[in-house]
Amino acid sequence: MKNLIIIGAGGCGREVLQCAEDINEKMIANEGSKKWNIKGFLDDNLNALEGKTCSISIIGSIDGYTIVSDDVFVCAIGDSRLRQAIIEKMKSKGAIFTNIIHPSAIIASSCKIGSEQIIYPFVLISDNAVIGDGCIINMYSSIAHDSILGDYCTISAHCDITGECTLGQRVFMGTTSNIVPGCKIGSDVYICAGATVMTKVRNGLKVLGNPAKIVKF
Amino acid sequence: MKNLIIIGAGGCGREVLQCAEDINEKMIANEGSKKWNIKGFLDDNLNALEGKTCSISIIGSIDGYTIVSDDVFVCAIGDSRLRQAIIEKMKSKGAIFTNIIHPSAIIASSCKIGSEQIIYPFVLISDNAVIGDGCIINMYSSIAHDSILGDYCTISAHCDITGECTLGQRVFMGTTSNIVPGCKIGSDVYICAGATVMTKVRNGLKVLGNPAKIVKF
Amino acid sequence: MKNLIIIGAGGCGREVLQCAEDINEKMIANEGSKKWNIKGFLDDNLNALEGKTCSISIIGSIDGYTIVSDDVFVCAIGDSRLRQAIIEKMKSKGAIFTNIIHPSAIIASSCKIGSEQIIYPFVLISDNAVIGDGCIINMYSSIAHDSILGDYCTISAHCDITGECTLGQRVFMGTTSNIVPGCKIGSDVYICAGATVMTKVRNGLKVLGNPAKIVKF
Repeated sequence: MKNLIIIGAGGCGREVLQCAEDINEKMIANEGSKKWNIKGFLDDNLNALEGKTCSISIIGSIDGYTIVSDDVFVCAIGDSRLRQAIIEKMKSKGAIFTNIIHPSAIIASSCKIGSEQIIYPFVLISDNAVIGDGCIINMYSSIAHDSILGDYCTISAHCDITGECTLGQRVFMGTTSNIVPGCKIGSDVYICAGATVMTKVRNGLKVLGNPAKIVKF
Repeated sequence: MKNLIIIGAGGCGREVLQCAEDINEKMIANEGSKKWNIKGFLDDNLNALEGKTCSISIIGSIDGYTIVSDDVFVCAIGDSRLRQAIIEKMKSKGAIFTNIIHPSAIIASSCKIGSEQIIYPFVLISDNAVIGDGCIINMYSSIAHDSILGDYCTISAHCDITGECTLGQRVFMGTTSNIVPGCKIGSDVYICAGATVMTKVRNGLKVLGNPAKIVKF
Repeated sequence: MKNLIIIGAGGCGREVLQCAEDINEKMIANEGSKKWNIKGFLDDNLNALEGKTCSISIIGSIDGYTIVSDDVFVCAIGDSRLRQAIIEKMKSKGAIFTNIIHPSAIIASSCKIGSEQIIYPFVLISDNAVIGDGCIINMYSSIAHDSILGDYCTISAHCDITGECTLGQRVFMGTTSNIVPGCKIGSDVYICAGATVMTKVRNGLKVLGNPAKIVKF
């Protein structure tokens, strides 16, 4: 059995822990044994769990940890750029990453899903969608038919990427934001919470409101 | 066993195929045999599946297809008016339609659901709601207690029709739009993505924003 | 077996009845017997079910009902202040309340959930969240990691309380409204449907729009 190590012991990390425990529980029910031995968190703040109810502990800092065989990793850090940097550095040191996909998520059989993913409860990824590496897709968010997400996108809860949209790399979508069919969104775009995007958005822009308009950072 | 034929091989049609496959899979798990033999798509664009991963193919055009016994149909065309025309024409030629209701949808036992429906994953239809014929209700959308939908409404994903609302025929709701309790919406109303409707809307109008205001087409 | 009595035979009450029936059905499937004998509604309007399809009836008014042993109650009244008053009065007369939590809801093992709750289908309450007493959390609504809800909050459908938010008592959130991470919301705040709250909101205020702004009642 592999040892699962969660990078980041903040809110996202603890939510990923719950997902991993739900996956283990389902595997026990279906197959009689759990999927992973959940080994602990890595976090540079060794006090990150202070005051929190949590079934596992922090076993080291990110840079300080020595990878052993049977370790698999997931990077539960919400910031796209930081997540990408950590995943790339850890992979260069030999780390193997796994996807965390909650059992309640629905993923069409025709999708292509990259590696290093975190897919929360009640997510739906629909027909012929393509998801790059290192994305986080939070609860209730949906990617409809034929849409394409680049690497390291961070999709908050209750978002809807409707049909035939294209998103670049490291796009952030705030809670309950949505993109109408066929829109093209560049890389490093920041879509504010609740925004409804009805037009093309170029690289590096931030958009807010309904219909979403460009705002300065 | 009936043959299921999906009219429309676009994004909606392929999403309906996934729903039908999920229904088949659940029937096999529960009862040992699938519900339908999924025969294929009808589409006037015989190249509609080009470049797509898909387990079935297009078996003919809509008008060109000869109905045989054991055929049942579902019309997976997002445009309300076109869907109505095709369903009415096919029925006049003897076609029998079936409802596609994803196993993850929750439907209260007191609801009245019409025929020729498509109900996506994670939909919730609540107490004493009434749904007309030929509606499409996309993923995560909810119709709360006592609300009434007319025929051929098209409800996108993440919409909320709250309690005691009334919608006419062929209403379109864009993604994540919502209607506050008790609102009356006429027929052929177009509610833009992300709109929050707080007032009555008369037949044929288009509304946008939060609170939703009338806009010209 | 306890007798379940639902206070309020309006839309919310009938939705709670459906939840209770779903809980019973799941208990029968898993353990061979239902959880409650669902005894009926209490409502001061004895005609509240007129014209509705409903499997149970109104067995008395709220004040007129004489509590018997084995009765447990749930208060399905959407107005926070009225719900609090009825729960407090009934408890002073010896009533024992139960939580209604739909089987499709996902609740992290680290959460603290108060008493007298109603938790609808597809709700998600995430890591280390704390929910006070007497809250109603409607379908698809989510409370993310570390957020705190005071007593008697009323959360409509499709809401997102993101991570590390704090809500006071009797907060109302309209459908599809949401609060960005870390926001502090006072008591008796009214968040209109579709609002995106990006700032602190003091006690007793009403906010509307995206970004949400203060409006007069």
